[in-house]
Amino acid sequence: MSLKLNLKYAGDSAGKEALASMKDEVSAAFGKLKNGTGAGSDYLGWLDLPVNYDKSEFARIKSCAEKIKSDSQALVVLGIGGSYLGARAVIEFVKSNNYNLISKDTPDIYFGGNTLSSYSLAELIKLVEGKDFSINVISKSGTTTETAVAFRVLKKIIEDKYGKEEAAKRIYVTTDKSRGALKALADKENYQTFVVPDDVGGRYSVLTAVGLLPIAVAGIDIDALMSGAAYAREKYASDDSPENDACKYAAVRNLFYRSGRKIELMVSYEPSMLMWNEWLKQLYGESEGKDGKGLFPSSVIFSTDLHSMGQYIQQGERLMFETVIWVNSPIEDVDVPFDSDNGDGLNFLAGKTMHYVNSKAFQGTILAHTDGDVPNIVIELDRQDEYNLGQLIYFFEIVCALSGYILGINPFDQPGVESYKKNMFALLGKPGYEQEKEILEKRFI
Amino acid sequence: MSLKLNLKYAGDSAGKEALASMKDEVSAAFGKLKNGTGAGSDYLGWLDLPVNYDKSEFARIKSCAEKIKSDSQALVVLGIGGSYLGARAVIEFVKSNNYNLISKDTPDIYFGGNTLSSYSLAELIKLVEGKDFSINVISKSGTTTETAVAFRVLKKIIEDKYGKEEAAKRIYVTTDKSRGALKALADKENYQTFVVPDDVGGRYSVLTAVGLLPIAVAGIDIDALMSGAAYAREKYASDDSPENDACKYAAVRNLFYRSGRKIELMVSYEPSMLMWNEWLKQLYGESEGKDGKGLFPSSVIFSTDLHSMGQYIQQGERLMFETVIWVNSPIEDVDVPFDSDNGDGLNFLAGKTMHYVNSKAFQGTILAHTDGDVPNIVIELDRQDEYNLGQLIYFFEIVCALSGYILGINPFDQPGVESYKKNMFALLGKPGYEQEKEILEKRFI
Repeated sequence: MSLKLNLKYAGDSAGKEALASMKDEVSAAFGKLKNGTGAGSDYLGWLDLPVNYDKSEFARIKSCAEKIKSDSQALVVLGIGGSYLGARAVIEFVKSNNYNLISKDTPDIYFGGNTLSSYSLAELIKLVEGKDFSINVISKSGTTTETAVAFRVLKKIIEDKYGKEEAAKRIYVTTDKSRGALKALADKENYQTFVVPDDVGGRYSVLTAVGLLPIAVAGIDIDALMSGAAYAREKYASDDSPENDACKYAAVRNLFYRSGRKIELMVSYEPSMLMWNEWLKQLYGESEGKDGKGLFPSSVIFSTDLHSMGQYIQQGERLMFETVIWVNSPIEDVDVPFDSDNGDGLNFLAGKTMHYVNSKAFQGTILAHTDGDVPNIVIELDRQDEYNLGQLIYFFEIVCALSGYILGINPFDQPGVESYKKNMFALLGKPGYEQEKEILEKRFI
Repeated sequence: MSLKLNLKYAGDSAGKEALASMKDEVSAAFGKLKNGTGAGSDYLGWLDLPVNYDKSEFARIKSCAEKIKSDSQALVVLGIGGSYLGARAVIEFVKSNNYNLISKDTPDIYFGGNTLSSYSLAELIKLVEGKDFSINVISKSGTTTETAVAFRVLKKIIEDKYGKEEAAKRIYVTTDKSRGALKALADKENYQTFVVPDDVGGRYSVLTAVGLLPIAVAGIDIDALMSGAAYAREKYASDDSPENDACKYAAVRNLFYRSGRKIELMVSYEPSMLMWNEWLKQLYGESEGKDGKGLFPSSVIFSTDLHSMGQYIQQGERLMFETVIWVNSPIEDVDVPFDSDNGDGLNFLAGKTMHYVNSKAFQGTILAHTDGDVPNIVIELDRQDEYNLGQLIYFFEIVCALSGYILGINPFDQPGVESYKKNMFALLGKPGYEQEKEILEKRFI
């Protein structure tokens, strides 16, 4: 029923003694989180979110999702970073990484506004052509360049298609509760609005309207998702005992980091978890990568990538450890057929299921990699459903916060993200950046 | 017309003096490659491939591609590692990362046989349901588990659908020229066969039938692809002069590695280059990651991932350098519209093109990251077409080989890939592995 942390293949760094040595640090981190005394404590809204959320907005998310399902063949979700990764990760995890290709009774979902690629935007325009569609634009400020430019373009298209009045009923805005460009526009145009809470950062926002509206449109049970998270909150946010798996995993990550293993490789055996890995990379990388510190997050899908990155992991620089998420029951299984010729020599597998074969690849890889001096942390899930995923999301969020405090950084800010934006605005000639523009342009001569 | 290497933002490690210090090592590596005196010299077929390939097979690839385009709504490509990454990278680079979603006059292309995920295989079965389709199965030995199991399943489906005789005309086999399970089956069943050359390893095989058949089915000009590669061969494989950009980049990668920058982050600004990055990660990671050495290859798509991995790159551990591939002319462009309200404050961009905005994100990011002590190597391409991509493929292949020799490893083998397979076979009870099975299973108690 609940996820299981297995440190048996994590080596001595994760042994009893090593964990005992971290007891005080973990306890201090846990205290900071629970008492709101750590850095960034204005952003702890996610901690109680699974039980303490706006129930009437939650109901409105469901009814809007129903409306979108009934009147739209496609939903365009415009948002970048935490404003799209959570929703996309959940939809692919629960439904499919081929969600838009498979036959289904829910709308296609196109994620846009997360790039400045002109070709991607041109393609998005073509993808909605001739389809009934709605838009969910997601931005706290409403001025994020990638999202705002795409929204300008798509807003014109949807208004040209349906007229301003009907279009207004097809535009759903997720933004600040009272301020900002999108909120002002939504009030003026009478769009449905949903709230990006002040105390929940983008990368922790998947269980707010930011994630939940697109997720619900995909036909995913958001009640079960929240229940899973609530269960994990009970389990991992209540005490700092050594039996708390979140505390254990946070400690082990830091122990590996201190011992010079600076890359954490997130591993899964399901292609539908590729975007889940991307969500995790933002959560960990953006939370921990500061002050010259932090584990570098990377990810692979096995056994696929055992045939590309496998060689490096087995025998390259010893820089990493792996965190493997293994799902015990697959969404669907297939039997390996018997072949009377047996040219490929695989009849010893005939009658077994693919998932059984996959499970042996998983076990065989753990042994191969640990033999190759890459410690493995294993997290086991029952199945790839909403309830399990809710747990998993909350588990990783709390591990991330605890790890960050142990590391000695603020796990809730992201000051470095502004650097490229400032330069970009200056180079683009944004009013107010004239002086910077001149200085920066000289560096390209 | 040709790609351009720019080391201006790569810092002192890539300065004239540093490059001069590498002269002898580069020259020695170049000599090994050209004279076939280095490790793995049995696998240098890719070096002359752009001019020295089987012209009659090339013509047959084109005619089979035409047949598939005329009688199939979908092509299923079964292969793992180098047997799918090259084709998928090229198709997405030239056409789109949404190739299967966009409207087009060429078949959908589904890549399967590259995972043991039962759900993925179940989905693949559904994706071809009700569609006219063909299969291209790609495996040198014909016994690669992931590919062979999927082929067993799909072969039954296509034979049930069309009957054995018609199915045989829809199965295309790319395998060893004379040996192995697939070759034997193809001869028996009278399938069209194409050759995986003996002297070209999987990760260097994109310009053989392995890559070219699926690429041609996608409507991509394989003549232009080969011409681009041939141009790059002229340019980068002819002499070891200090003006050879392949030599320069190979030297700089090794200089960074020696100075403790152990992660090479491959960067692109086009979502359609995501699978190109995956191809590169196999090429570099599998070639260099051995003997406890090698740069760890990772990748991002900007500006998308500036909102997830951007914080880490800007301010996290200083472990990395970036190699940015920038495309000067986009496949398609879009103007930023004027908005009379200007609530988002972006009217300073109105009338400019998205690609212009993207180019300033690119420039602004280079300055931000180099200011944050992450050196940037920049490779500029004219456009995202076959000719430029042919150049790019050959350029990275030769850089990889040179880098590997400078690093002191064999860039053409992959001994570590067997480790997980051996364990997996034993755990699965493959005949002949009885003793290993017993030993391995004890490690799971």
